[in-house]
Amino acid sequence: MCTDAPALVEAIRSLAVRGAPLLGIAGAYGVALAAARGFDVVEAARALEGARPTAVNLAVGVRRAESAYRAELAGTGEPTAAAVAALAAARALHQEDAEASTRMAAHGVALLDELLPGGGHRILTHCNSGSLVSGGEGTAFAVALAAHRAGRLRRLWVDETRPLLQGARLTAYEAARTGMAYTLLTDNAAGSLFASGDVDAVLIGADRIAADGSVANKVGSYPLAVLARYHHVPFIVVAPVTTVDPETPDGASIEVEQRPGFEVTEILAPQVPVTGAGGGIPVAPLGTQAYNPAFDVTPPELVTAIVTEEGAVSPVTAEALAELCARSRRATIG
Amino acid sequence: MCTDAPALVEAIRSLAVRGAPLLGIAGAYGVALAAARGFDVVEAARALEGARPTAVNLAVGVRRAESAYRAELAGTGEPTAAAVAALAAARALHQEDAEASTRMAAHGVALLDELLPGGGHRILTHCNSGSLVSGGEGTAFAVALAAHRAGRLRRLWVDETRPLLQGARLTAYEAARTGMAYTLLTDNAAGSLFASGDVDAVLIGADRIAADGSVANKVGSYPLAVLARYHHVPFIVVAPVTTVDPETPDGASIEVEQRPGFEVTEILAPQVPVTGAGGGIPVAPLGTQAYNPAFDVTPPELVTAIVTEEGAVSPVTAEALAELCARSRRATIG
Repeated sequence: MCTDAPALVEAIRSLAVRGAPLLGIAGAYGVALAAARGFDVVEAARALEGARPTAVNLAVGVRRAESAYRAELAGTGEPTAAAVAALAAARALHQEDAEASTRMAAHGVALLDELLPGGGHRILTHCNSGSLVSGGEGTAFAVALAAHRAGRLRRLWVDETRPLLQGARLTAYEAARTGMAYTLLTDNAAGSLFASGDVDAVLIGADRIAADGSVANKVGSYPLAVLARYHHVPFIVVAPVTTVDPETPDGASIEVEQRPGFEVTEILAPQVPVTGAGGGIPVAPLGTQAYNPAFDVTPPELVTAIVTEEGAVSPVTAEALAELCARSRRATIG
Repeated sequence: MCTDAPALVEAIRSLAVRGAPLLGIAGAYGVALAAARGFDVVEAARALEGARPTAVNLAVGVRRAESAYRAELAGTGEPTAAAVAALAAARALHQEDAEASTRMAAHGVALLDELLPGGGHRILTHCNSGSLVSGGEGTAFAVALAAHRAGRLRRLWVDETRPLLQGARLTAYEAARTGMAYTLLTDNAAGSLFASGDVDAVLIGADRIAADGSVANKVGSYPLAVLARYHHVPFIVVAPVTTVDPETPDGASIEVEQRPGFEVTEILAPQVPVTGAGGGIPVAPLGTQAYNPAFDVTPPELVTAIVTEEGAVSPVTAEALAELCARSRRATIG
């Protein structure tokens, strides 16, 4: 339970609250919370949007609530009315995200049916992209779920997603409760599935999509994109239009969060007694340094399609993405 | 401590004794042990060679000690003399493996110097292939160690190697005690290192090499081979000639061991209290099925070179491998 913005910043940093769309919603509510409690809204907004660097949705959500707050304050001079406006902005974002999920799922299923006309899809996913990260049913997972409901999903292959096991802990849970057929695997074993022809498509979410179509997502996504290309399997990214950041020109401009090495050198699990410096059980020799980027970047030439609530972009080009963002702005204004 | 062959079979199955070259040595000593204790040598040999299916060295080691035993028994009719012969065969294999390590390391360093003339190698390795799996300093790790001693190794990137973390637990330990610069990473993060140009070569061991040059090694090796190819990085396999199995024509003929799902659905670590059915802490929902192949197969077209104690084969072809095996047999006979 986060009763002030600093507590929410900590929840975001420690990944208690995580996943690109949910970070946007949480950031907006965080600004509304700061406003309602009479804290410095600008300071809270900067702290919230700086809590994690890669997912652009966080900054988008924070700024939307902050803009609503500032506009109301400038107009009425009433902090209470401004706080109400910030909360309304957060609620609107939340509602829009839920609706975007539904539309992404529909566009995604249509794309799968087009790419894989036979049905019986065997989909590989990485990390977690369902209702635990969304106001609705999520991004990539929402597509798999819609395919399942349409009788088109034969199996969801769930990468465990080291180091924090979001696949094993969260996606497997989301898959289990829907009743879909799913199988967990180490990230290492995905290659064997491609080699045996058991993957029909890869579906992942995104934390930031650059203007050129480069996709930042959970570390391990890029190796899947390379495997998918090598095996001529579609690699599909599912994300709301807000994940596309026109201010980030290309993949090299995306800041990739580097996380503490103890996430790799120690095993972190709820029931594990704390013995290591990072709060887990050491599995590597004391003093071992670890390279632990939270995300990687897949260049647009390896992405078959980006599916958004406004439709799918394929092939992925800067022009097509810009057109999509413009269409989304018109729809929002209209 | 294994005082009889069934205990050794169990130690091999549970991976207390593991790694292709060491399995060969252990298998040979296991036969010698059964002979010395007066057990049924043929029965012990069949149990030992059947303990794990993929590493051919296990069967090779077992059969070598068994052949020595049978030959002596047929000649002298003396079980005691036959047991001594089995032990001598095991010791000879052990000694040869140590010598093979030294020669593989020398050939490997020469190959690296040829492929990467500038020195300052940044080597990525997967699983564990050092002195913990060898009568000497190992296979792939022995090459990295020799490069380190020659002042040519800038850094060893150590894949943690899920699910059993041989990289984090064993290779990091072997690297740390030599004083080489090394960094641990999740298997997922290797893609980011390739993308940023920080991997100059991949060095791995092998559990079985088919006659066509297909390489079975720890699961996760094949994705590295695909990444290496995509990034034009040499992918080098280091293994003794005994790992080449002329009886296995191609990759499709290699039996890949499927291991229990609990290795993926539960966290297994020494200090972890047992709460799951597999003896660890469950990290996935109860009832989650896991796909858990222990190995994968890399086709010869993705292997830049196979380094053995008899020299390197590059490009990897059936003819070149057959010639190498013939040379090795001549060397052994001579």
